[in-house]
Amino acid sequence: MKILLTNDDGINAPGLYALYRQIKTLGEVAIIAPAFERSAVGHAITTVDPLRVSEVRKDGELYGLAVSGTPADCVKIAIKSLLPHRPDLVISGINQGPNTGMNVIYSGTVSAATEATMLGVLAFAISLDSFTSREFEYAAEFAGRLAQSVIEKGLPAGTLLNVNVPAVPRDKISGVRVTRQGMAKFTEEFHKRIDPRGRAYWWLGGELMDTDEEEETDSAALKDGAVSVTPIHYDMTDYKNLDVIREWKLTK
Amino acid sequence: MKILLTNDDGINAPGLYALYRQIKTLGEVAIIAPAFERSAVGHAITTVDPLRVSEVRKDGELYGLAVSGTPADCVKIAIKSLLPHRPDLVISGINQGPNTGMNVIYSGTVSAATEATMLGVLAFAISLDSFTSREFEYAAEFAGRLAQSVIEKGLPAGTLLNVNVPAVPRDKISGVRVTRQGMAKFTEEFHKRIDPRGRAYWWLGGELMDTDEEEETDSAALKDGAVSVTPIHYDMTDYKNLDVIREWKLTK
Repeated sequence: MKILLTNDDGINAPGLYALYRQIKTLGEVAIIAPAFERSAVGHAITTVDPLRVSEVRKDGELYGLAVSGTPADCVKIAIKSLLPHRPDLVISGINQGPNTGMNVIYSGTVSAATEATMLGVLAFAISLDSFTSREFEYAAEFAGRLAQSVIEKGLPAGTLLNVNVPAVPRDKISGVRVTRQGMAKFTEEFHKRIDPRGRAYWWLGGELMDTDEEEETDSAALKDGAVSVTPIHYDMTDYKNLDVIREWKLTK
Repeated sequence: MKILLTNDDGINAPGLYALYRQIKTLGEVAIIAPAFERSAVGHAITTVDPLRVSEVRKDGELYGLAVSGTPADCVKIAIKSLLPHRPDLVISGINQGPNTGMNVIYSGTVSAATEATMLGVLAFAISLDSFTSREFEYAAEFAGRLAQSVIEKGLPAGTLLNVNVPAVPRDKISGVRVTRQGMAKFTEEFHKRIDPRGRAYWWLGGELMDTDEEEETDSAALKDGAVSVTPIHYDMTDYKNLDVIREWKLTK
């Protein structure tokens, strides 16, 4: 079993290392990840600049390849150019912080898995529901079991899984729920400040997530201490409203 | 009517100017767009760096504000911080090049309109089906009429329109089709090269779009010389496969 690991927190992130230690027991594991944190880059790819690739060593051994691009770049260049064989599975994570609700659309972690799916490779993204906790152990264990299920059962064409795990030990987890993407979002504001040279700059701040969500959503699962598994896809068509717009009878 | 214009080709792009000249006849128009080309950045937002904002003048008058960020950043900072009033409508474009098929997910043009929708503002994205033609006239005219329709009829909550227009004059347009997002994609490869200092770099190239698509898709409409209007949304849940994954009976 050939598995590619990536993330958006950067190749030196502890969540990726926790995932690696678990997944390496399952087969041949390669790590190809952004050189630096590339959070909130969504499905960005790098086209106006070239990419650089460099080896990263850990404990005296080759750990992986750092790419000067986004998570989607990493998966694209890994599958198209850097890996000697096509991977059987791509896992993106373990992200530091949840990827639920409206924020899924900003997620570099999810976009790496989406890119793999677009290239026809099985994939899931996995995130820890905390921006600070280093409680990655249970999430890594769950990733290992899910990897086996995904390889064994496959996924419908064009579908990937977006997994979010509470930041608690195994005995505190209340269960596993297959959920839909909720509509929770960050209440964020720009802070306008003045730099040391007297010029204005704006910085996006405030990351309080509203979690008043319906039972079947991703963030409601986390609130109840359950692992959330959401099947997602990259077809953004709003099928239920095709006819609404057709009734407009637009003319040239 | 207060309308915000943005794009991903940068504030000085001719497609944005063509749009501006048409839309300014409809009401109060503001332009807040990336300082430079930010194509293929998907729904990236800037969180690890601050944003800068500067005035851009054209023909001696204030034309708009250039933001040192992505298209989604522009819409977010415009609505949350820079505009004195909430806009009634956001239009993103006119993009140089189509945003159809799988590539919608990489599109900065579309993500700007998506961001507006997430903030509860009516929005559409509009792209010209050519990377080189400056035939923006008909696309701008169509944008003007569509803007009036959208304001008049509204859009379902969470829905935006992704519009693609053939790069031909009005009398060559075969009609307007409400379509679904197709699965066409670029056949792209990385070129590995050696820089003047002897080090390797990789650059994504090759942009031949496969267009062997079913009738009701966005790229099939363009192929037939028709304007394509696709209702899209940011809920990525793959509803039809929720039960497939539920049958896996995942346990903690």
